[in-house]
Amino acid sequence: MAVQQQALTVPTSGQGLYEITDSVERIVGESDLLIGVVTVFCQHTSCSLVLMENADPTARRDLERWFSRLVPENDRHFEHTMEGPDDMPSHIKMALTRTSETIPFTNGRLLLGTWQGLFLWEHRRHPHQRRLVVTVIGEKNHGRG
Amino acid sequence: MAVQQQALTVPTSGQGLYEITDSVERIVGESDLLIGVVTVFCQHTSCSLVLMENADPTARRDLERWFSRLVPENDRHFEHTMEGPDDMPSHIKMALTRTSETIPFTNGRLLLGTWQGLFLWEHRRHPHQRRLVVTVIGEKNHGRG
Amino acid sequence: MAVQQQALTVPTSGQGLYEITDSVERIVGESDLLIGVVTVFCQHTSCSLVLMENADPTARRDLERWFSRLVPENDRHFEHTMEGPDDMPSHIKMALTRTSETIPFTNGRLLLGTWQGLFLWEHRRHPHQRRLVVTVIGEKNHGRG
Repeated sequence: MAVQQQALTVPTSGQGLYEITDSVERIVGESDLLIGVVTVFCQHTSCSLVLMENADPTARRDLERWFSRLVPENDRHFEHTMEGPDDMPSHIKMALTRTSETIPFTNGRLLLGTWQGLFLWEHRRHPHQRRLVVTVIGEKNHGRG
Repeated sequence: MAVQQQALTVPTSGQGLYEITDSVERIVGESDLLIGVVTVFCQHTSCSLVLMENADPTARRDLERWFSRLVPENDRHFEHTMEGPDDMPSHIKMALTRTSETIPFTNGRLLLGTWQGLFLWEHRRHPHQRRLVVTVIGEKNHGRG
Repeated sequence: MAVQQQALTVPTSGQGLYEITDSVERIVGESDLLIGVVTVFCQHTSCSLVLMENADPTARRDLERWFSRLVPENDRHFEHTMEGPDDMPSHIKMALTRTSETIPFTNGRLLLGTWQGLFLWEHRRHPHQRRLVVTVIGEKNHGRG
């Protein structure tokens, strides 16, 4: 058993879902671990993680738009408005989705469903450099170790 | 330390919460690991996981119905409608709940609260065979290893 | 590699976000593990976990109030009302947030973002003793183990 940890930076250019499946799978593949789990952790509170269908882009667009209708900007109840109208909705969308996600792997491949991809969900309007921490935990050999 | 991984298939017969606590606990119990965590991962984007009260079924029914009122079918804003009226709401309900859940265990028992159960939440109307991956990570002996 | 597990009790005095970052970091620091992940698990279905900004309290207040507007008490659709008007909304808010959270650490420090804190989110009105299970999984030495 071993643990291997590394940073992953994702540049974003505004609101949207940015697929990071390949980047995470590359880190898993480059480790010498054959079976285990990889944990992806998002070091921010205005973007988040989600596993979503990665085939038809209309599904992701509907997801994003639904969330933006649920959590509109300029809600008159918000007090925390100093950082811009998209800031408080970003925190809420983050709380409604995920900050950490744990995905199993075997032989260097993530055990995802056929159309399942991992996405960083940017909730802010402006470009950001988003920092994730990817931790691979597993065994070098199969079996009951 | 060791990791043990196996698939778990859950047949569903329409929308609802399907308890999988016993199935996951059986996998943990059959491993030879005494202390650690078990990660359950759902390989789909139209069903999800949730830990919920498993005593009174009205609590689960209220939960389901509340989500269905929040995310109604036939939302005129949806573009992704090709796979049926229950498809896009399923993706949204999935994003609002969880794809992976990590539960601690000791001596083969999940360390759940008294009325806490783990459920696969089927969001689609038709029957499905849902695939989960259960990964048990832990030590064969207690202590500071 | 080793796993170390312990209980953490958080007394709550009504609805709100209770920061537990320091308590979790103390457990990680007191372990002899240098690199890995810590999993925090909440043994209840009427409170939850969230990673949120810990600088400006107005952000947390807006988050709480938004959730209370989304899931109001005394919804006429609720059947599960026996345990009080704040019970069913608590379960729903729990399902919308998280029961387990996995955070990476190195050298005894949680790898959180600058303004990121871990909070127990109490959804019930009355005081409770909330039980969490904190599991630290990691290596005693850095490197490829």
